[in-house]
Amino acid sequence: MSVILGSRQFDAAESTNFGVDWVIHYTFEEIEIPKAIEEFRTLINDLQEAQLQIQVRPGHGASLLVCIRVPRDHLGNMVYKSRVKDWLHGIIHEVPIGDDHTVEESETPAEELRSVFHAVTWQKAIGGAGITAQMGQWENVSSTFPLHDPTANAELLRKWSRTILLTAEDLDAIRALYGEKVAFYYAFILSYSTFLIFPAVWGIFSWLYLGPYSITSAIVNCLWCIVFVEYWKIRETDLSLRWNVRGVGALKVNRPQYVWDKEVRDSITGETVRVFPAHKQLLRQMLLVPFVIVASLALGTLIVVTFGMEIFISEVYRGPFKDYLEFLPTVLFSLSLPWINNTLTRIATRLTDYENYRTQDQYDIAQTSKTFVMNFITSFLPTILTAFVYVPFGARLLPHLDVFNIRGLSKTFDTSRVHIDPSRLQQEVIYLSVTGQILNFGEEVVLPYVKRVAMQKWRDYRKHSSGQGRRYSHRTDQLLNDSPGEAAFLTRIRNEAEADEYNVHDDILEMCVQYGYLALFGVSWPLVPLGFLANNWLELRGDFFKLSLECQRPPPIRADSIGPSLQGLEVLTWMGTLSTAAIVYLYRSGMQNISLRTLLLVILITEWAYLVMKFAVRTALEKVATGSLRREAAKRYALRKRYLDTITRSTSPKGRQRVRFQDRVNVYSTATDVHGNSHEFLHPGHYESSSEERFWSSPPQDTADAGIRLIKALCTGEPSVPEKMKKGA
Amino acid sequence: MSVILGSRQFDAAESTNFGVDWVIHYTFEEIEIPKAIEEFRTLINDLQEAQLQIQVRPGHGASLLVCIRVPRDHLGNMVYKSRVKDWLHGIIHEVPIGDDHTVEESETPAEELRSVFHAVTWQKAIGGAGITAQMGQWENVSSTFPLHDPTANAELLRKWSRTILLTAEDLDAIRALYGEKVAFYYAFILSYSTFLIFPAVWGIFSWLYLGPYSITSAIVNCLWCIVFVEYWKIRETDLSLRWNVRGVGALKVNRPQYVWDKEVRDSITGETVRVFPAHKQLLRQMLLVPFVIVASLALGTLIVVTFGMEIFISEVYRGPFKDYLEFLPTVLFSLSLPWINNTLTRIATRLTDYENYRTQDQYDIAQTSKTFVMNFITSFLPTILTAFVYVPFGARLLPHLDVFNIRGLSKTFDTSRVHIDPSRLQQEVIYLSVTGQILNFGEEVVLPYVKRVAMQKWRDYRKHSSGQGRRYSHRTDQLLNDSPGEAAFLTRIRNEAEADEYNVHDDILEMCVQYGYLALFGVSWPLVPLGFLANNWLELRGDFFKLSLECQRPPPIRADSIGPSLQGLEVLTWMGTLSTAAIVYLYRSGMQNISLRTLLLVILITEWAYLVMKFAVRTALEKVATGSLRREAAKRYALRKRYLDTITRSTSPKGRQRVRFQDRVNVYSTATDVHGNSHEFLHPGHYESSSEERFWSSPPQDTADAGIRLIKALCTGEPSVPEKMKKGA
Repeated sequence: MSVILGSRQFDAAESTNFGVDWVIHYTFEEIEIPKAIEEFRTLINDLQEAQLQIQVRPGHGASLLVCIRVPRDHLGNMVYKSRVKDWLHGIIHEVPIGDDHTVEESETPAEELRSVFHAVTWQKAIGGAGITAQMGQWENVSSTFPLHDPTANAELLRKWSRTILLTAEDLDAIRALYGEKVAFYYAFILSYSTFLIFPAVWGIFSWLYLGPYSITSAIVNCLWCIVFVEYWKIRETDLSLRWNVRGVGALKVNRPQYVWDKEVRDSITGETVRVFPAHKQLLRQMLLVPFVIVASLALGTLIVVTFGMEIFISEVYRGPFKDYLEFLPTVLFSLSLPWINNTLTRIATRLTDYENYRTQDQYDIAQTSKTFVMNFITSFLPTILTAFVYVPFGARLLPHLDVFNIRGLSKTFDTSRVHIDPSRLQQEVIYLSVTGQILNFGEEVVLPYVKRVAMQKWRDYRKHSSGQGRRYSHRTDQLLNDSPGEAAFLTRIRNEAEADEYNVHDDILEMCVQYGYLALFGVSWPLVPLGFLANNWLELRGDFFKLSLECQRPPPIRADSIGPSLQGLEVLTWMGTLSTAAIVYLYRSGMQNISLRTLLLVILITEWAYLVMKFAVRTALEKVATGSLRREAAKRYALRKRYLDTITRSTSPKGRQRVRFQDRVNVYSTATDVHGNSHEFLHPGHYESSSEERFWSSPPQDTADAGIRLIKALCTGEPSVPEKMKKGA
Repeated sequence: MSVILGSRQFDAAESTNFGVDWVIHYTFEEIEIPKAIEEFRTLINDLQEAQLQIQVRPGHGASLLVCIRVPRDHLGNMVYKSRVKDWLHGIIHEVPIGDDHTVEESETPAEELRSVFHAVTWQKAIGGAGITAQMGQWENVSSTFPLHDPTANAELLRKWSRTILLTAEDLDAIRALYGEKVAFYYAFILSYSTFLIFPAVWGIFSWLYLGPYSITSAIVNCLWCIVFVEYWKIRETDLSLRWNVRGVGALKVNRPQYVWDKEVRDSITGETVRVFPAHKQLLRQMLLVPFVIVASLALGTLIVVTFGMEIFISEVYRGPFKDYLEFLPTVLFSLSLPWINNTLTRIATRLTDYENYRTQDQYDIAQTSKTFVMNFITSFLPTILTAFVYVPFGARLLPHLDVFNIRGLSKTFDTSRVHIDPSRLQQEVIYLSVTGQILNFGEEVVLPYVKRVAMQKWRDYRKHSSGQGRRYSHRTDQLLNDSPGEAAFLTRIRNEAEADEYNVHDDILEMCVQYGYLALFGVSWPLVPLGFLANNWLELRGDFFKLSLECQRPPPIRADSIGPSLQGLEVLTWMGTLSTAAIVYLYRSGMQNISLRTLLLVILITEWAYLVMKFAVRTALEKVATGSLRREAAKRYALRKRYLDTITRSTSPKGRQRVRFQDRVNVYSTATDVHGNSHEFLHPGHYESSSEERFWSSPPQDTADAGIRLIKALCTGEPSVPEKMKKGA
């Protein structure tokens, strides 16, 4: 990687962005010129109406690059306004002082870019240019994106290639560059990897001394999982407060596709909100259930069938071409899986569209959680089958696999002869946690990089040759060829325009799946955490490499969590506890004398233990780690205090109060009267006031003596008065 | 009850409180006069120092009644101050305008009394008189309490004796009289009873057509439980917002017994807080675990032994006095239970003291949750034993019960002959849900009432006779005899002083136990909910009767929930689902061909179903019923908006901003410069600015044309310029 870094650093000198805030990539491959021209005109108009500065440059092929810059004062004002909005929704506590024309410095590049993003993409109604890529009117706008900051990226990459663990500052840096949504992913992988250190060490220990399937390490494993998930919940809140994004979802703008039933004017805030009734949405969400069932069936059957075939061929089949046929199932599987996945994803998207969410966030969450289900099935079902079906019951199942009755197995097959190796699970897990991870990394980071470079070369070559082949007039030539000063910059823009979008959810999902392996099957090979730890060191950097060099810079979107993945983690932890228990019970005796009854009992007890432990851990952690929440409350308190002082100063009510104060001292009855009104029946009337006065008439100073006299009277039956009188005499 | 109401209403005329806000009951039975006098002096001084008006009257026996009135202006000021405090802690959103001398009307009698309560009980440091009954210096102050409002109470009782269901107004009325903590109990029993209507109706239906142990009604039952608990959670939040007590725990004052390690000055709010580290407390709370174990063992063994004896005597024993002996176990049980309970409670209190909570609330919660554990064991274990041990396995266990081997059963006993009637469970449940409830009500409400009346009579009789027997000097006489005007009033105070304190937790607990019966064993007799519904109608009124006529009026304490009972309810629901499943499986086949394996499977699957359903129901309800939370957010929003306007008006920053605005338009580079500072490495430098200006130099107006020329050039290879020039020519 250092090579790349080196090269990066080398051209860092020309890594200026010419003050370009945003780029719109407009392609007109498919449409004819007049339409293109006309569309382009409107594009430019819309942009100019939104007070944006524009420059146009040619892109790769039949496409234009519209460079956008937001005038600083306008931008600063947008920043200010968005801050006011944040403050009004209680997301930040430092009140931004100013009026409609105030110009504020952005705290981070991300904050600045977010305002630019809004300026470009928001509907005109709320002060944007309404350019939404690949949608409706702008389907020919293939992408709109901000430019990378190569220096900063290279800087970070270099820094991390030297260190082992990232610091809070690194996270802040990511947040400053790419916004909170991305930063949260890195925060997650960081905490997760840090947590992994413990099981990794413990794993080595138990590998040396306890061996696989040890009850101790099973318990340790499960506890670790519970603690981690509960810890992350708190950590998430912490960060969302540190980054001032807590509850940021509330102030997100409506999606263009959002359909509302009615506009309601909020009685308290006086703002009109576009409402789509919750219960309707709920009903629509119900469709998730059939979807999940369909998905599970589709993927499940596929996996089971492949699995069956594989075993059939390897264990039962003795016919010709065995060696070749053995690959058949895998091939079929890898051929059909993408197709099924695509179909399901299409259905999922349809569903999510139909569920009609107000904000993009909610939409993404709903969509992600659907992909989650699919991913979990595809990643875990095979291993689950191995662990709980094939190895335990394989011997009994094999005969029935001979469906075509090739060798009349079902009759003559003697199960005792089939030996199913219990270590198969272990092998699979080892494969998943080592080989799998490496391949994964390769296809995720290395492959695209190679592809990109190759693509690059090919384009240069073609351009070169076409340059030879084709003659432009001098004017066109100078029109199409970049001015030397801009050349390097423009090449970079073009590449970024060609690069694919970065989807942070995929990376999060990947981590969750990894966590899932650990939780579900970790117990069967103690070194799993170690493998994952090593992988994540690379993964983190690889992901950042991908993000910063191979993808378009994502718009810096805000988020206050890693989204639905959290629930995914919880489910996995729960499943993990159960499966760990089951695996330990089944495998540590090597499949000898196991009874279903005991198995069930074990699972049941584990589950109860899980519920109890979870509750305990959560309570404990919440009790101890409430620092940031307390600080939050304190801020709110301080805010209100300031406010109180302000208004007390502004509207000093002393005079008024005094008066009121005066006429309330004398006439007590009015007091009862007044708050009698609020609850008529609570006060019989005022006839008592006279008797009342009598009751309170005796002068206060001698109440003590009165009491003492009473005490004596009550005890001795003789009042103390006589003595007193004697003194008097 | 109407009789009582009648009588109440009759003396409603003289039900004035003479403006007495609070009463201190000072007893000096045990101490000799000088000490009493001296103590009493300090008492009076402390009260007067706290600006309280005082009158002293003789109480029953050797005791004094100190009547306290807070001067209205002082009280109003306290109300104002507490409101400011509320507002500062974000509990209310309407900012109270005023200064240190502002006097506010209290909204409800409860609010007023709360301030009085504070004035009397708070430490002197924070402006109270520091009179804490039966504690430290004031252990001879047997009680301090506000006076009842007989008219209001009678009014409510009469109203409710006519209606079936309470309305929100009734709840508000209770809140107005007794404060939120009590009101929450009534809100709970109300929602619970309302919810009971459905299972009651369904119960009748299934009693007629499905019979006991029907799977359908089992499922309905469990679902109902889940929905109810999740609903109540939301309802609770609703009410806490309606009554402005959300998060009220935060601003409660420290308990006098609270021990802190260090005083920390909060950096943000600037207030000094007395900190006792959370982890320390956590460690101490760990002691709960051994306590629970001890409690379970103690109570468990007691119950099991009694149970065993009972069965032994009824089934095995054939010796003499059988008829008498049969009562033995129950007698022993009822003799030893109170003793064990007391011992455990004493331990529990010790623990809670040791855990050292900051506020009284936290203390109560901790204490209550401990009593919960004990109560749950004592109330549910017997029935659980019947359901899951005695009836299923009784036949196999009986032989071993013959410990004394009276008739050599263990050898010669033939199990087939013992027939254990499965309907025993049903009988027990019926008993619990009908007889038990009635008895319970009797001993809770009727008995104390009778006792009180009897006591009254006895006292009058004795006083009369002693009046005869003993001669006071005329002066003492007039000192001790009430003036005719006050007589009735004083009798009332004296009675209230004698009455016992009201503990709302007990009532809540009772309801939870009832809910527990329903959740755990409801399936075995469909009419259980009906019985409970009928009972609760009476219970609600009975409890209010008790509260208003038989107990001292509790200080109007604020709370934002029913406390730890909520967790109790959740646990019960979970246990309920499991036990329902088990009961149905065991009993519907009448104990025929049951296998442990299937049982476990059933339980396991039910549990999963439970977890899923719970999640689903919660999500659904939260999605639909977020009204009040939204309103809350809106209020906060409105508050901030107002604030923003205020400060914008006060500090109009136009001038300053303008200037800044000016000098930022021309020089763009400074902008980068400034926010470069925050992240140096994000900006290579400013050498680019020149090339930047060149980049943006081309005049904006013709960008469109430039783009169009490009489009044409890219497609046709010929720029559009020539045509343009022709036009130009």
